[in-house]
Amino acid sequence: MKIGWIGTGIMGLSMSGHIQANGHELFVFNRTKNSAEPLLAKGACWCDSPADVAARSEVLFTIVGLPEDVEDIYFGENGIFSVEGDCRIVVDMTTSRPSLAKMISRKAEDKGIDSLDAPVSGGDVGAKAGTLAIMVGGRRNIFHKVLPLFQLMGQDISFMGGPGAGQNTKMCNQILVAGTMIGVCESLLYASKLGLDQDAVIRIIGKGAAGSWSINNLGPRIVKGDYEPGFIVNHFIKDMRIALEEATEVGLSLPGLGLVCQLYLAVKAQGHGCSGTQALFIALESLNGGRL
Amino acid sequence: MKIGWIGTGIMGLSMSGHIQANGHELFVFNRTKNSAEPLLAKGACWCDSPADVAARSEVLFTIVGLPEDVEDIYFGENGIFSVEGDCRIVVDMTTSRPSLAKMISRKAEDKGIDSLDAPVSGGDVGAKAGTLAIMVGGRRNIFHKVLPLFQLMGQDISFMGGPGAGQNTKMCNQILVAGTMIGVCESLLYASKLGLDQDAVIRIIGKGAAGSWSINNLGPRIVKGDYEPGFIVNHFIKDMRIALEEATEVGLSLPGLGLVCQLYLAVKAQGHGCSGTQALFIALESLNGGRL
Repeated sequence: MKIGWIGTGIMGLSMSGHIQANGHELFVFNRTKNSAEPLLAKGACWCDSPADVAARSEVLFTIVGLPEDVEDIYFGENGIFSVEGDCRIVVDMTTSRPSLAKMISRKAEDKGIDSLDAPVSGGDVGAKAGTLAIMVGGRRNIFHKVLPLFQLMGQDISFMGGPGAGQNTKMCNQILVAGTMIGVCESLLYASKLGLDQDAVIRIIGKGAAGSWSINNLGPRIVKGDYEPGFIVNHFIKDMRIALEEATEVGLSLPGLGLVCQLYLAVKAQGHGCSGTQALFIALESLNGGRL
Repeated sequence: MKIGWIGTGIMGLSMSGHIQANGHELFVFNRTKNSAEPLLAKGACWCDSPADVAARSEVLFTIVGLPEDVEDIYFGENGIFSVEGDCRIVVDMTTSRPSLAKMISRKAEDKGIDSLDAPVSGGDVGAKAGTLAIMVGGRRNIFHKVLPLFQLMGQDISFMGGPGAGQNTKMCNQILVAGTMIGVCESLLYASKLGLDQDAVIRIIGKGAAGSWSINNLGPRIVKGDYEPGFIVNHFIKDMRIALEEATEVGLSLPGLGLVCQLYLAVKAQGHGCSGTQALFIALESLNGGRL
């Protein structure tokens, strides 16, 4: 099948690589051509604009940075919607605004094409291994059409409801992560301040009712002072802001998420925007007068 | 061995039952004699006061409700420290103030006996099954003396450091739970408000980097409107207050824990003090104008 792919960052490159490896013909665009080279070297066709991709592919995937980038790629000059081409289905896999997913869905419908929003979780590791979780919003019959392609990229693939439901599910994921991370960081901060062996603390509290992926995977990194990113602070802030804006729009107060987002803005202000999300620990340390 | 046991609530009854079932002679006191009946029926000796227990047992365990109760049992009139008896080691398994654990340790030392603080996690289910996690503070050689008895009650038993270290580790556990719970409840609140199938959301976000014991075990109960307690709100508030007081004493600011504790006070104010900790969802719902 002729597959369009826009966005060849860390995630997109691995994901489109699985599609390509399965024998599909790839039509690729990215802001910087350089990062698409591994795909081009294996025979993918370079396109000069999103419109060019849309003109030449049947199913088109996008995964870029910010909702603003998504908007530009779909609605901008030389955007996906600026041409009448072969494209029948567009799938945005960026973590983006649920309201933007609905806008894309409406505009696509006007043009007689179908759309899905399908953000992922699982990070670069999951993208590489093809084990992502994929949360999909849109029309169910379109979901089933695209499912064989999703299955090349992910393991745990769920249809969640109409347009925007994929994005909203990803927001649920990020809200959950936000709460868990403040728990992880404050718990280890307390352990440190009270002179406990933090690794021993993680070992005993990580197994029971307090246990989480975060305490067991990011906790030990915090103890080692390892702030290398699995998922970077700036992206997490973007996601929390989307969730807070969406919640505000429907009149929903989320005090925990509000606090955690503010603390992550402090992490960024302290120069750790490109560190991993576990760097929340640093901001809480400095809130308490610096390294404990 | 002659084992003293003070506190035969849900936790204490199961825990002491394991000790008794292993052939040890039990000397029991509880505020209400009634709840000790299952032990007495199997041959445990009833004692009329904590002092009486201390006079007749070699190793004495306590697990009661509040730090005030612990203080009374150890330091009060007819308390453990009011007599010279056979007791060589006292072990407080109540989740209580780290500073009180240190006070008990000092007083015990004055009297030539040894002490451990050894709070548990794992709830009534873990107590019944003998699979509790036990976090122990005190002297290491005393820990090793008591270990065979701990092993009758728990599975995951760790020596954490000097007097109070067991209590402080339990505080780490509760701080971690607090953060995770606000994440769980706000995530499911967002899902509900945005019209998602909450069970489907739990299934997909519960497995990856957002996953935790809480979302996978308490999440489904919230969806069903099941607020039956595993662990009750009033006890959790007690624990969070201890953590906040201890943190205040050492000059540590924990903004996440502070917020969550305030929200749980709202849960209690709304009449749900004896519900399970998942009732935080109800307070967040009413904060948002009632049932969504």
